[in-house]
Amino acid sequence: MKIALVGLGTVGREVARLALEEREMIRRRSGADLELVVIVDKDLTPRADLSIPRQVKFTDDLSAAMSDASIAAVVELIGGTGAARDVQLEALRKKKHVVTANKALLAERGAELLKEAAQNGVQLRFEGSVCGGIPIIKSLAESLAGNRIEELYGIINGTANYILTQMVRQGLTFEQALKEAKRLGFAEADPTFDVEGTDTAHKLTLLCRLAFGVDLPFDRLSYEGISKLSPLDLRYAADLGYTIKLLAVAKRRPEGLEARAHPALIPSSHPLAAVSNEFNAVTVVGDRVGEMMFYGRGAGGRATASAVLSDLIDIALGRPSGGLTAYDSGLRIIPKDASVSKWYLRFKVLDRPGVLGQLATVLGSHHISIEACLQKGGPVDGAVPVVMQTFEAKESDLRRAIEGISRMDFIREPTQTIRVETLRSDGTA
Amino acid sequence: MKIALVGLGTVGREVARLALEEREMIRRRSGADLELVVIVDKDLTPRADLSIPRQVKFTDDLSAAMSDASIAAVVELIGGTGAARDVQLEALRKKKHVVTANKALLAERGAELLKEAAQNGVQLRFEGSVCGGIPIIKSLAESLAGNRIEELYGIINGTANYILTQMVRQGLTFEQALKEAKRLGFAEADPTFDVEGTDTAHKLTLLCRLAFGVDLPFDRLSYEGISKLSPLDLRYAADLGYTIKLLAVAKRRPEGLEARAHPALIPSSHPLAAVSNEFNAVTVVGDRVGEMMFYGRGAGGRATASAVLSDLIDIALGRPSGGLTAYDSGLRIIPKDASVSKWYLRFKVLDRPGVLGQLATVLGSHHISIEACLQKGGPVDGAVPVVMQTFEAKESDLRRAIEGISRMDFIREPTQTIRVETLRSDGTA
Repeated sequence: MKIALVGLGTVGREVARLALEEREMIRRRSGADLELVVIVDKDLTPRADLSIPRQVKFTDDLSAAMSDASIAAVVELIGGTGAARDVQLEALRKKKHVVTANKALLAERGAELLKEAAQNGVQLRFEGSVCGGIPIIKSLAESLAGNRIEELYGIINGTANYILTQMVRQGLTFEQALKEAKRLGFAEADPTFDVEGTDTAHKLTLLCRLAFGVDLPFDRLSYEGISKLSPLDLRYAADLGYTIKLLAVAKRRPEGLEARAHPALIPSSHPLAAVSNEFNAVTVVGDRVGEMMFYGRGAGGRATASAVLSDLIDIALGRPSGGLTAYDSGLRIIPKDASVSKWYLRFKVLDRPGVLGQLATVLGSHHISIEACLQKGGPVDGAVPVVMQTFEAKESDLRRAIEGISRMDFIREPTQTIRVETLRSDGTA
Repeated sequence: MKIALVGLGTVGREVARLALEEREMIRRRSGADLELVVIVDKDLTPRADLSIPRQVKFTDDLSAAMSDASIAAVVELIGGTGAARDVQLEALRKKKHVVTANKALLAERGAELLKEAAQNGVQLRFEGSVCGGIPIIKSLAESLAGNRIEELYGIINGTANYILTQMVRQGLTFEQALKEAKRLGFAEADPTFDVEGTDTAHKLTLLCRLAFGVDLPFDRLSYEGISKLSPLDLRYAADLGYTIKLLAVAKRRPEGLEARAHPALIPSSHPLAAVSNEFNAVTVVGDRVGEMMFYGRGAGGRATASAVLSDLIDIALGRPSGGLTAYDSGLRIIPKDASVSKWYLRFKVLDRPGVLGQLATVLGSHHISIEACLQKGGPVDGAVPVVMQTFEAKESDLRRAIEGISRMDFIREPTQTIRVETLRSDGTA
């Protein structure tokens, strides 16, 4: 099968290397013969870590990929939602299969692109778009097709997880850990999507489409990042027996589907709490298979290239991607405010008698009870931190209570609110 | 696609239930329409937990499945290597696809059966044969096809893991824990295959075929079970910072492939140490994807049925099983005796001066050095237990040293020897 690769960045280089160097190994292992014939990139300077053989055309002219009818599949690895969308649409309309790792585009335009693929009788595959080399897309679409998925949650952004791990281990602030992550190549020059939760939400959208049969309107998805977390929060969480992770969560409720992406306190004994640095893990709970976890390196050129190649192999062998196209389960999306959970609250209050009682009174008047309270260390400039863990409360109640509290004269800075997530863990100590 | 099910035991009943009750859900999710038309079992008494509709033929006559040309796939769930082999061969020769969860048959006759399937242009699929609902077969055969697998190891027998977990948690002997496991349905009436390591070795054979392209002659595979483990070993291991698990291990070495199944001490901080009760977990290390772990419920009718159904869906959608048939990597199998590892040794010796020195001298004369030594508790009947952890040593050297030690007059019972396994753990705390 002849292939064109569009975009020679980190992932693109590894895809090219794997296709060029391991063609024979892949043919022997899988039976698929993949022939990379065109590489398109606007930057035509030679790459130090990749030698492109003469017979592969290296060009900045996209039509070299599109106008050659013998090219059966186009790999789009330029990223973003602009030019990438044009490339995918053009390829699909020319009846070429498309393989991509572009989660942003698929989250925002997935329905349109999948429809275009179906109309042209070709495949649009995206294993590399979520969790690097972990086969979570294929597992949801194919292996778990006989299950009703009840829950899905996990750590699906390697950059944010790397930063949180370093904040805990080295006691760094978010800014310090981000700087370190950039230096070591674990964060991009513009890390906004990764640290503000956008990337996690993009991936959650894709996972929900496969697992729950819903087309989650991306703009209605609730998400939050990690940039407002303080080393204090990580330390207090540890004192309470928790670890803070950036989580993607989707749960089937009697009323519909609850989906959100945000930092959360999870019990330090839970397997997800041990997932460190750039690693990812996704737990899926199916009505037949029960609890299942997939764990591995969630990003990086080599791992993502492994996923892209597996998609190309499936296409070359004529394995249809049944299941990738959204079926419509009719599941309703539960509004964000109606979701219920326990909460971690960190107040900074004036160090004077009666403050704790006043906090508890306001919370109580919004139906929120306190499960644990922590106050450590003496006053700084007359103010002390107070940490509370609540029992289960509706998000809307909590927001109203915090708003009420923000107007009280003893509050010194905006209150930190983080969810405490109740997670299953059937088979671990 | 019309399907015949042969064998209505624990897994068979769940496959029937899933196919009958969820046909519409599966059709909507995957696009595959699965129609169960014949169920064959020698016991025709109605099953309390399954109502078979009138239009499904329930018979003890195998020819009902074989002679109907409209039946495209036969699910073999009778188990064992006798009648099951006949059923599979007959179905394949009649050009019917075969789906099975029969690891014993596949481990011992896999090459023959896969060849028969290929010759008849049909598929032989076996996702349910390893780790219940965990899609480890598909992941190795398809998703990781662009990787050279470096290592594979895991806990792949739920019964043995359940027994070990209860031995540790409740301080039970092997016999007590086995009795409890039988009572709760986690062990079969004849648990030999599960507790003596045979089942783990069978599954390891299948995994090695997919991961390393070798046809491991089952009779040359080294394996050991858990029936000789004492609660003492579990306790001493914990004192040394380890947990004992029944492991399957395969590692690519410069000299070839090392494959074995046996109890092993693994660091208690490693994620596999936390895999408890009937749960399974498999770690795969690929040259591109790095370390990856699959975790879930490793057995049980419902989880295994989920895997069987995923195979049927793939067949119905015309997804070829490229990769399941062994390619021959030419990898040499390293003889068992040549493998190197650290060892846990438990001696029972006469309580007299100089014994420790004599033990160390014999070990040293076979090139074995001691990393840690543990002696706890006073003498019982004049004898004390001594526990040692060695540095890396060849198995053949160790066996010779233990043989020498067994002849010394202060040795009161046969020495316990268990491997200490060095495992990667890149992304966990």
